[in-house]
Amino acid sequence: MTSKKPTTKIARHTADAIYVRGASLVDDLIGKLTFTEMMYFQLLGAKPTAAQTKVLDAVLVTLMEHGITPSAIATRLIYDSCPEAIQAAVAAGILGVGSTFIGTMEGCAANLEEIIASENQSSTAKALAQKFRAAKKPIPGFGHPHLKPDDPRSPRLIAIAEEAGVPGRHIRALRLLATEVDAAWGRHLTINATGAIAALLGEIGVPQEVMRGIAVVSRAAGLVGHIREEQLDPAARHIWGVVDGAVPYTGK
Amino acid sequence: MTSKKPTTKIARHTADAIYVRGASLVDDLIGKLTFTEMMYFQLLGAKPTAAQTKVLDAVLVTLMEHGITPSAIATRLIYDSCPEAIQAAVAAGILGVGSTFIGTMEGCAANLEEIIASENQSSTAKALAQKFRAAKKPIPGFGHPHLKPDDPRSPRLIAIAEEAGVPGRHIRALRLLATEVDAAWGRHLTINATGAIAALLGEIGVPQEVMRGIAVVSRAAGLVGHIREEQLDPAARHIWGVVDGAVPYTGK
Amino acid sequence: MTSKKPTTKIARHTADAIYVRGASLVDDLIGKLTFTEMMYFQLLGAKPTAAQTKVLDAVLVTLMEHGITPSAIATRLIYDSCPEAIQAAVAAGILGVGSTFIGTMEGCAANLEEIIASENQSSTAKALAQKFRAAKKPIPGFGHPHLKPDDPRSPRLIAIAEEAGVPGRHIRALRLLATEVDAAWGRHLTINATGAIAALLGEIGVPQEVMRGIAVVSRAAGLVGHIREEQLDPAARHIWGVVDGAVPYTGK
Amino acid sequence: MTSKKPTTKIARHTADAIYVRGASLVDDLIGKLTFTEMMYFQLLGAKPTAAQTKVLDAVLVTLMEHGITPSAIATRLIYDSCPEAIQAAVAAGILGVGSTFIGTMEGCAANLEEIIASENQSSTAKALAQKFRAAKKPIPGFGHPHLKPDDPRSPRLIAIAEEAGVPGRHIRALRLLATEVDAAWGRHLTINATGAIAALLGEIGVPQEVMRGIAVVSRAAGLVGHIREEQLDPAARHIWGVVDGAVPYTGK
Repeated sequence: MTSKKPTTKIARHTADAIYVRGASLVDDLIGKLTFTEMMYFQLLGAKPTAAQTKVLDAVLVTLMEHGITPSAIATRLIYDSCPEAIQAAVAAGILGVGSTFIGTMEGCAANLEEIIASENQSSTAKALAQKFRAAKKPIPGFGHPHLKPDDPRSPRLIAIAEEAGVPGRHIRALRLLATEVDAAWGRHLTINATGAIAALLGEIGVPQEVMRGIAVVSRAAGLVGHIREEQLDPAARHIWGVVDGAVPYTGK
Repeated sequence: MTSKKPTTKIARHTADAIYVRGASLVDDLIGKLTFTEMMYFQLLGAKPTAAQTKVLDAVLVTLMEHGITPSAIATRLIYDSCPEAIQAAVAAGILGVGSTFIGTMEGCAANLEEIIASENQSSTAKALAQKFRAAKKPIPGFGHPHLKPDDPRSPRLIAIAEEAGVPGRHIRALRLLATEVDAAWGRHLTINATGAIAALLGEIGVPQEVMRGIAVVSRAAGLVGHIREEQLDPAARHIWGVVDGAVPYTGK
Repeated sequence: MTSKKPTTKIARHTADAIYVRGASLVDDLIGKLTFTEMMYFQLLGAKPTAAQTKVLDAVLVTLMEHGITPSAIATRLIYDSCPEAIQAAVAAGILGVGSTFIGTMEGCAANLEEIIASENQSSTAKALAQKFRAAKKPIPGFGHPHLKPDDPRSPRLIAIAEEAGVPGRHIRALRLLATEVDAAWGRHLTINATGAIAALLGEIGVPQEVMRGIAVVSRAAGLVGHIREEQLDPAARHIWGVVDGAVPYTGK
Repeated sequence: MTSKKPTTKIARHTADAIYVRGASLVDDLIGKLTFTEMMYFQLLGAKPTAAQTKVLDAVLVTLMEHGITPSAIATRLIYDSCPEAIQAAVAAGILGVGSTFIGTMEGCAANLEEIIASENQSSTAKALAQKFRAAKKPIPGFGHPHLKPDDPRSPRLIAIAEEAGVPGRHIRALRLLATEVDAAWGRHLTINATGAIAALLGEIGVPQEVMRGIAVVSRAAGLVGHIREEQLDPAARHIWGVVDGAVPYTGK
């Protein structure tokens, strides 16, 4: 249905070798790249600098685990129903990496891009903050229901990126926005982890359209840990019973 | 339905901190562990040694990408149908990490465990090889349809593990088995990548029951790369058209 | 996190009975309702009239099958990778029931609701048609790439609904909109199947927010048929080979 | 990779028509077949008799809904995380239609086939019952944790099938097996719903390898109802909170 024929730059195997992005898997990649470096290389087509690797590792570590989340509950229940196919349990969990929790990362990234692309960054940041405030909507990347007054992950992430030596444009835009958010709300709102991550992924060249994918990979790793714990100390039947009791039937 | 109440050792957040496996996410993990190290820590409850990290990285790099596979095709098609939820496209792809391709890793790991646990490892290896041969079944971890005479990934993976200094019991069992497989078949069968990976994951303490999860995480990362390429150079509609033409309708 | 405790009106089992929406599954439902009637009852809390059943059956029959679609391809590939868990293959396929193909049903339903709720339905229809035309965007529910000049399913669906005796407000709104669409575009655009289905589901009281669910159920049934055909006449390996050849590797 | 080229008997569209299994969708199927009849036709390639339709409807109605099950919980949580893609929430839920709950249907069907295919059905049934009993394993299709002494769905399903006039071979095999099960266990075990359904689906010609697909379709319909209830009376956040409290963190 398209005239131009698509191609792939990602990978191919021949009778005696496998190539990824032009590199020999066996000679150039296995044993030479970490998983994080390989992920960056496969996704963006260039090997990351040490700074980019440091930042991507920090983001992936941050996103992996949050305990008994909706995704972890779904994974544990599906594992119990279908223990012979653990990929299905992981899939059920990552289906929860949707707009509600991770969408804010993308929304924040879009705002940062708008600030960076503008002539007067401060006034763009101010206009954005005021627009969300006037609409009485939460502004993505700011605020947290539990972690008050500040989400401790955000300054840590930003410090790692600055120490590593990223260009700094996205972090600067985030700080401009934070100042204007506090002004528009008339009180301090924390930069939350998704806000900081949006800036960091921007710094290392991950496009906004695929940022959610980074979260998916990291959560997938976390969910495998929940499956392992379910194998050792099963919780799924207890969860089922507790939920069944917590949502009583009232009839039609 | 169970009497003993389940608990979790994985993670918890409080009003001002997040803990994973007893460690503070912000103070002890972000910026200090790579993603690979964090994955090991979250899954197994202990930080990996340098050797274990090296081996796990090599395995994850090896499994990530194989080009236009069934999983990659599924992910690309679902992305085109539902671009607003890329987690769904990744989920569709990882559902293909099933028994057909990855099950051989688990089957090989089970054989290696049987050899290691036995009194006379050589005779156990011989009995296993002869049992599969007599049943005219492929023995998991050996042989490859395209990569002949040898899968180049396997010696590379084993060399990395030995250089890193793993204990060596699983690799030894794999070599014993390989000798007996060649004898039973009367010709050389390559140790394939899933065979080598089964040995390496055994060396670093990943239990056989959750090995498939390692593959799921690595493939998830690869599939995000296919989504990114689909965003830049869409292939899904072309794939659809080609497949539609390749499977003609014959009526009832 | 919510103050009011949620309840369910859907189902409960006791030591000797199962209740759905206040009715006894064994005494009132099994053998007395068709699957379509049960689906309506479970979803909307009231047993359907004969007219509503007739319409819902027609919609479900229409949506079930379109041959070698992206969903069917994904299901067949995942089935081949994981034949021991056919639910995973169905899940992979229904993940494709997303905005690209089914979103137009919801978009059309929203337009019909807007027309119905307005004081002057004709002028609202006209304004809607002109708005989409001015934005050079396709208007959901109209046009079809292959079926020209008219999608034959639409008049058939509307005729069935009218013969069955539905109230007619949504169909009337669709016809008003069709007239204005042809005027705004300066040529005839067919009402396509998703447009007609949006009207029919509106006629029988299915809310717009859950219409996509009807399509998911119907496609799930279709996908089980593809799995059965894959068991009898496997196509997945052929599909893989054809696609691999159709998307050549160009390297980094 | 296969020499013979695969074909499809399922569906095709041309410029002005859509065909399913050789029939015109518009002229022969929409408005003429119920969803249940269409599902049978698409799956098995022949239109069902009235008896077959009656039985398939009874099975689909029975399987649809069981209240707050693991599948329903997963669907509700994923819907809350990703409300823009309700197909993802349904997919998460149907991933739970696995071996734990639905595998017993397939296991029972396999036993019934073995009985039917044997020369002496009674002695085969006896041998099967004794084999499971000796292995101290539950025999698929018998027993129920809550519904005692008898699962009320089973006699109802069998009565419907017999009134409808099915051939009766599978039901006869199930009764033979039930007698031998009670003898082997030394007490009465109920034929449960999955046992009765295995017999009924066998009676109408649904092959054992695809029986699970029937359950997937029916549960998909039930899960859409849970999504609708979640839209009207959200439970997901309450479920999350309750589960989080029920699985306490103990640290590493």
